[in-house]
Amino acid sequence: MRLNVIPLGTSAGRPTLLRGASALAVVDEAGWVMCDCGEGAQLAAMRAGLTLSRLDAVLITHLHGDHFNGLPGLLGSLGLDGRERPLLVAGPRGIARVLEELGRVGALGLGDMPVNLIELDGDGGAIPESSGGAGLQVVSRPLSHRAPTFGYRVAQTDRPGKIDVAAALARGVPPGPLLGKLKLGESVRLPDGSEVSPEGIVGPIQRGTCVAYTLDTVPCEGAVALGRDVDLLVHEATYEHARAQLARERGHSSGVEAAQVASEAGARRLLLTHFSPSSDVGRVQAEAAEQHEHVLAAEDGEALEIESR
Amino acid sequence: MRLNVIPLGTSAGRPTLLRGASALAVVDEAGWVMCDCGEGAQLAAMRAGLTLSRLDAVLITHLHGDHFNGLPGLLGSLGLDGRERPLLVAGPRGIARVLEELGRVGALGLGDMPVNLIELDGDGGAIPESSGGAGLQVVSRPLSHRAPTFGYRVAQTDRPGKIDVAAALARGVPPGPLLGKLKLGESVRLPDGSEVSPEGIVGPIQRGTCVAYTLDTVPCEGAVALGRDVDLLVHEATYEHARAQLARERGHSSGVEAAQVASEAGARRLLLTHFSPSSDVGRVQAEAAEQHEHVLAAEDGEALEIESR
Repeated sequence: MRLNVIPLGTSAGRPTLLRGASALAVVDEAGWVMCDCGEGAQLAAMRAGLTLSRLDAVLITHLHGDHFNGLPGLLGSLGLDGRERPLLVAGPRGIARVLEELGRVGALGLGDMPVNLIELDGDGGAIPESSGGAGLQVVSRPLSHRAPTFGYRVAQTDRPGKIDVAAALARGVPPGPLLGKLKLGESVRLPDGSEVSPEGIVGPIQRGTCVAYTLDTVPCEGAVALGRDVDLLVHEATYEHARAQLARERGHSSGVEAAQVASEAGARRLLLTHFSPSSDVGRVQAEAAEQHEHVLAAEDGEALEIESR
Repeated sequence: MRLNVIPLGTSAGRPTLLRGASALAVVDEAGWVMCDCGEGAQLAAMRAGLTLSRLDAVLITHLHGDHFNGLPGLLGSLGLDGRERPLLVAGPRGIARVLEELGRVGALGLGDMPVNLIELDGDGGAIPESSGGAGLQVVSRPLSHRAPTFGYRVAQTDRPGKIDVAAALARGVPPGPLLGKLKLGESVRLPDGSEVSPEGIVGPIQRGTCVAYTLDTVPCEGAVALGRDVDLLVHEATYEHARAQLARERGHSSGVEAAQVASEAGARRLLLTHFSPSSDVGRVQAEAAEQHEHVLAAEDGEALEIESR
């Protein structure tokens, strides 16, 4: 199973002419979710060939403008499109009030679109699926930044193993409920009393692909928990490691620290993003690559295809 | 005297890949002001070669998202730049509360930059100059839209006529206060009792260039008042005239109506903008050109040099 991950904005603090403000799309066959929504994210999504009507959820890490300022405009565009399907929006406590205030003065333009707003607090946790969505499973955990911040894990649901139907029929399993049960990996008892085990007939469970998104944050437990065994960890790497002290003071991480989080979590791959306009991205990546064997630096619009283990 | 006018976003309702959300720069030698600030305006300004640090004022017509959503990010970028010079921000009543709410959750990031916030109400009026600004004179008047909306007139201060110093000296006017008084267009009495008139020595007053910005609105008195004798009227023209009824219902104008306003006001030139993504801009412009002899359709990033009469 696979997910496409498309960085839509990879700059820290502000958009530049080369890198947009923070946003990233996690794209499944049936729909997609947006992690953070900095200014310009809706246009970046359109440039990347994404269809706004298939957007299922927007997951905001925190309310600093470079992660949030694109959300009102995105909601307005969906409203203008006449969307009636609900959109799930998650973010830290406070997001409801600021959206309400923007709506009150007419800056949102939601039209007939319902917004399922989830305010996160405390330890975060599982986020209910958006109705009609792609069925991606989302979990949140608190990170450690200057403002209340939550990271997210976005995962496809595991699928049953592939069944060799001919082999099952040859073993006497009739089409119907018994075949369905076998496909789920369970042994079945046939009408003649004999038992058929899935072994050799049903392949291993198809593991859903799993992506964690952890910005902005210093290295922290929450990021490690979200990144545990994921296929891709997207972690902020605002500065080179020579500025790790500055990063710490501002609630950020160096690329080296991001790679240490990825290694501790057992993340298969690491995608660095949220680069300060003052950072040398090549150096941030090279330093991180000394700590983890699969390190990439995000570039706006450059999609990655992520496959599950 | 001249001003540069640079459309930064010319789309109605939402940004598209071809036209950004509403914003327009009026650029003088010493600084510039931004009229409306839709999402992406700060990047459009940078692409147009404008320097954010020389921005003196942001004039918001109304709080619909496509005119306002770029303001929080613009303020944040100025704050990150370490700006300490005040920025003037004008907009309809309600803008203070929504900015305050955005600031409260950390979405603004103003840093040490003071914002001189002017909330408009009633009949609008003259807006005090921003300290340290380019000295452009700004006047507001209410327009007629679905939300409280104000248009603006931005004008250079008139300058005294050019003086022929050699001619003045030849007539016996000594350098100093008398020469200064003559330059202002007044007759002066010399120490010998004779009088020297500015005629033939001092040229006509140099009229400041004057631009009016009137969106979103149906054709209205406020737009005519702001556009009176201006060198350029920037008026919204959301739809073709075949959809004038729809325009009226939604608080907008057709190109024909914009041109009628320009003609009634005696505006020298008309720049149409705020085109619905569903409109045929060529047709909107052609229809307007039947009503006024100098009609242009705004394109993102295409600067116009406007000279005073």
